[in-house]
Amino acid sequence: MGEYLINAQGEDVVAGVRTPFPISHLQEQMPEVYKEFVSIADRLEKYFRDMQDMEFTIEDGHLYMLQTRNGKRTAQAALQVACDLVDEGMITEREAVLRVEPKQLDTLLHPQFDAAALKAAEVVGKGLAASPGSACGQIVFTAEEAEEMVKSGKMKKVVLVRLETSPEDIVGMQVSQGILTVRGGMTSHAAVVARGMGACCVSGCGNDNDVKIDEEAKTLEINGHKFVGGDWISIDGSTGNIYAEQIPTVAATGNKNFNRFMAWADAARQMLVMTNADNPRDAQQAVDLGAEGIGLCRTEHMFFAEDRIKAVREMICARTVEEREAALAKVEPYQQSDFEAMYRIMGERPMTIRYLDPPLHEFLPSKDEEIKELAKDMGMTFDELKNVVVSLHEFNPMMGHRGCRLAVTYPEIAVMQTRAVIKAALKVSAETGKMITPHIMIPLVGEVKELKFVKDIVVETADKLIAEAGVDMKYQVGTMIEIPRAALTAGDIAKEAEFFSFGTNDLTQMTFGFSRDDAAKFLGAYYDHKIYESDPFQHLDQIGVGKLVKMAATDGRATRPDLGLGICGEHGGDPSSVEFCHNIGLDYVSCSPFRVPIARLAAAQAAIKNPRK
Amino acid sequence: MGEYLINAQGEDVVAGVRTPFPISHLQEQMPEVYKEFVSIADRLEKYFRDMQDMEFTIEDGHLYMLQTRNGKRTAQAALQVACDLVDEGMITEREAVLRVEPKQLDTLLHPQFDAAALKAAEVVGKGLAASPGSACGQIVFTAEEAEEMVKSGKMKKVVLVRLETSPEDIVGMQVSQGILTVRGGMTSHAAVVARGMGACCVSGCGNDNDVKIDEEAKTLEINGHKFVGGDWISIDGSTGNIYAEQIPTVAATGNKNFNRFMAWADAARQMLVMTNADNPRDAQQAVDLGAEGIGLCRTEHMFFAEDRIKAVREMICARTVEEREAALAKVEPYQQSDFEAMYRIMGERPMTIRYLDPPLHEFLPSKDEEIKELAKDMGMTFDELKNVVVSLHEFNPMMGHRGCRLAVTYPEIAVMQTRAVIKAALKVSAETGKMITPHIMIPLVGEVKELKFVKDIVVETADKLIAEAGVDMKYQVGTMIEIPRAALTAGDIAKEAEFFSFGTNDLTQMTFGFSRDDAAKFLGAYYDHKIYESDPFQHLDQIGVGKLVKMAATDGRATRPDLGLGICGEHGGDPSSVEFCHNIGLDYVSCSPFRVPIARLAAAQAAIKNPRK
Repeated sequence: MGEYLINAQGEDVVAGVRTPFPISHLQEQMPEVYKEFVSIADRLEKYFRDMQDMEFTIEDGHLYMLQTRNGKRTAQAALQVACDLVDEGMITEREAVLRVEPKQLDTLLHPQFDAAALKAAEVVGKGLAASPGSACGQIVFTAEEAEEMVKSGKMKKVVLVRLETSPEDIVGMQVSQGILTVRGGMTSHAAVVARGMGACCVSGCGNDNDVKIDEEAKTLEINGHKFVGGDWISIDGSTGNIYAEQIPTVAATGNKNFNRFMAWADAARQMLVMTNADNPRDAQQAVDLGAEGIGLCRTEHMFFAEDRIKAVREMICARTVEEREAALAKVEPYQQSDFEAMYRIMGERPMTIRYLDPPLHEFLPSKDEEIKELAKDMGMTFDELKNVVVSLHEFNPMMGHRGCRLAVTYPEIAVMQTRAVIKAALKVSAETGKMITPHIMIPLVGEVKELKFVKDIVVETADKLIAEAGVDMKYQVGTMIEIPRAALTAGDIAKEAEFFSFGTNDLTQMTFGFSRDDAAKFLGAYYDHKIYESDPFQHLDQIGVGKLVKMAATDGRATRPDLGLGICGEHGGDPSSVEFCHNIGLDYVSCSPFRVPIARLAAAQAAIKNPRK
Repeated sequence: MGEYLINAQGEDVVAGVRTPFPISHLQEQMPEVYKEFVSIADRLEKYFRDMQDMEFTIEDGHLYMLQTRNGKRTAQAALQVACDLVDEGMITEREAVLRVEPKQLDTLLHPQFDAAALKAAEVVGKGLAASPGSACGQIVFTAEEAEEMVKSGKMKKVVLVRLETSPEDIVGMQVSQGILTVRGGMTSHAAVVARGMGACCVSGCGNDNDVKIDEEAKTLEINGHKFVGGDWISIDGSTGNIYAEQIPTVAATGNKNFNRFMAWADAARQMLVMTNADNPRDAQQAVDLGAEGIGLCRTEHMFFAEDRIKAVREMICARTVEEREAALAKVEPYQQSDFEAMYRIMGERPMTIRYLDPPLHEFLPSKDEEIKELAKDMGMTFDELKNVVVSLHEFNPMMGHRGCRLAVTYPEIAVMQTRAVIKAALKVSAETGKMITPHIMIPLVGEVKELKFVKDIVVETADKLIAEAGVDMKYQVGTMIEIPRAALTAGDIAKEAEFFSFGTNDLTQMTFGFSRDDAAKFLGAYYDHKIYESDPFQHLDQIGVGKLVKMAATDGRATRPDLGLGICGEHGGDPSSVEFCHNIGLDYVSCSPFRVPIARLAAAQAAIKNPRK
């Protein structure tokens, strides 16, 4: 008895793992049975119009078919089969689009472990699957070391291991094969930046494992497995698995059928696919992968860059409006040039710019030693700066002074950001001769009067600049829907908002009442007890969070029929969530650059299964 | 021209503040005009059927009436007027119930500042109006000092000033006239305990003021006003005002008309009024003020008591289920005796016991020095205990590992609490011959399967104990609705829950996406800009949070028509929120003991205005 995985031509397309011996052996040993088998396989494939995974047995020279089902296959094979079936006229292009699992495209875009080597490897720990792909390299404990080792050629491949990463680690992250962090969740700095780069990342491995890290002594221990700097480690950002050994990787190959297949998907699609990007590199990457615009350009990452963080900190420490405005005046040219660079890449494609979101204490150090040093730089006493840090302390930063609440207390910030956006758009429009329409997004709104307060500031500032420039530039002001109350009062909010972008990361946190980073500690028990079947941060919870999204979409459109509707949470790159977005009538999904092809395919499949009128 | 406030009998009932001279002067000086005035006043009072606040002018001996409106009055006067009008047959008892502002009853239950003295006093700062009443006393900086000063007679009246209070401060809080804290919000330890005691409290005065406190040096500075221990301070827990001087207070007087009036209110009322209480003193206080049961008995305050915190900490540090069960076995007898004491007071009145809610790190110290000391006590090394503390750290504790999530990961806790509840109920039922029906409430549920998981543990444990006792005791298992997702999926949750209690404190935090403690820092700007008109933690936000409550009540009753429905957040004692609860069909409201009369009156007024069938 044997189990074979073949296509109707008798080729063992994915023989590597599951076929005990090539089907061609059957042809040599039992030519009659082989002939009968090929004929049956052909009929089955025609009947099911897909490659079949068949089980059969041969007893006393008789062939018995035991079972058949659509065959599982690699992305490479899936694309090949789909194209073959179209070329043979067996299925239409729209049918072909349904034949490839969107998630599988990941393997075409990221390096993967060699399958045979992986089979023999031992998993020593498991973190969060923060950014897909596989990485193997020698351990370095600092971003500087990563840069130095790779540039000097002392190590060819490194994996950067950190307690957590911060903005100054960017260059070191870029030269690393992958990033492993002990702390932090799926939205930690490491995870977000890695997804943007398309780099492999496993985050928060300390949540569920016994992990000790000493970045100074350069030692790491995971469930008893000890590592020192230079030791080999392998990590899988698609599963979160960690291996204490060197597992060879196979480079992302791309695929000759890819563009042809994706064109069929795009033809079928009824939603736009945008990307989340806040720097020119990510934006270009996303455009190359088919993004039709930027659904979420976060502005806070820009604030962290070394040449402007000082002015940002002066703004935070300002004691008067005048001091704050003076500091913001220093930030403005940087912010404007950031937006110019983005507009130059995006051209007339829409770009939705979200105003400053995180609580201000994220821009200041928390340790006394660092405060001391910074105070000296800023010409403040230690006590003065320490007082600012203490006064910004929050019990629950997620639910604190952030988002548009910053603009309500410090309208100067919204003024500066508006000036930067509009001036950048005016400048690049003049340069290129193509008129840009800025999309300005106010985050964390919970009440229409709150949106109106900030919008009034934006409109006053923008209109003045546009009038001064003497051009006819349009712009839109919209909001994130990420607070339950915003979804519940969406009919009112739509009176002021020209578009809604569902921020389903925060909306999921608030609706479930758990923070993503903290929930990692107890969600394991929830899966064990089958209370939740999947991670609500990966797959949109259609029953609870989805109810709010649907309600807000319906109520918002009732107020403003042409209200723009999209989603910019992590769910924008998850196939089942994308299908939900299609079904409730959203205009677009937005996801990290390397998930754009997945979203394009998922949106196409949703449109084919349940076409909109 | 003069402005007078009189009743139709020409008595100047609230003359103290607003009347420049007694109306009797008019009678002496212009007897004809006086006669005409009394006649007009009498007609106006009969027409409006209420005491009138009239403005008039007399020119050239002619009386001109300028304006009339229903008169403002003290609670004393309001009760008197209501009773008088009933006795005169001018209004019915139900109409009389509408004539007193529920909030005014506070002045009958708590000491107030002398009105004239207050007028001359200067406000030096403003904190949160955390628990009503007025207090004046000499400053002490520790609970021990409060006790010592008052017991020794060195100070007669003290006001306890703390950065924040903790459970070991209870006795010192009891002997103080009032409590002032620098940190913490409306649900901080100081605020919750003070409301339970009926003591005056102003919390979080450091949020909006420039406040420096040094508890060791015994100094306090508020907006430049310096205080040392022994200095006089006055605080108003109804307004949050702070005064740097001695303002005489007038004791709560009670009122001869109070019981008669409240009996009319109770006759009109259609909702039950319960109380939030977790110790026998508060429970008795609430019953004396008319509470018909306990809507929320928190069990965590019991865990903090000195004689059991050690076992609780052993439970938290346990490395195995067996170690955890051994520690819980030590807690169980304490917990059982707590419940017995409560059942003895409440008798057959319903008492809803909420299972352990706060994150476990709240039971452990956070400072290294305290950890060192505790480690010694517990026979652990510093590193071991420090590791536990670090591992329990949460980014957003409000949205962390708490509520029923503790019971999902450590079912042993729910087993112990169920044993304590059921054994206490069995024992007190046997003692008194009256069968108690325990109401067990599972907090922080967001999904029906989560409730079912914990309920199964409760039912298995309870049924076994009841069967062993050989009695026919009934019990109910219900849940708090305090997570938006619970409200959104209430139809499913009602399949397992026998009652819902709306925890509108947390539900407001999650729905607005801001934590009560952190929001204090920015809500001021929101009021200034008229974005929010009132504090959503004081008055239920009927548009957003109320939409969720109404949806959950409707969907829950659709699944289970006899589903019990109540509210146990702070809003249960707020008149406008009580009216909302009545209008959407809740069975009861529950509030802190001293707000029970307010809730009784507010519920009565709601029932009169909009009677249920």
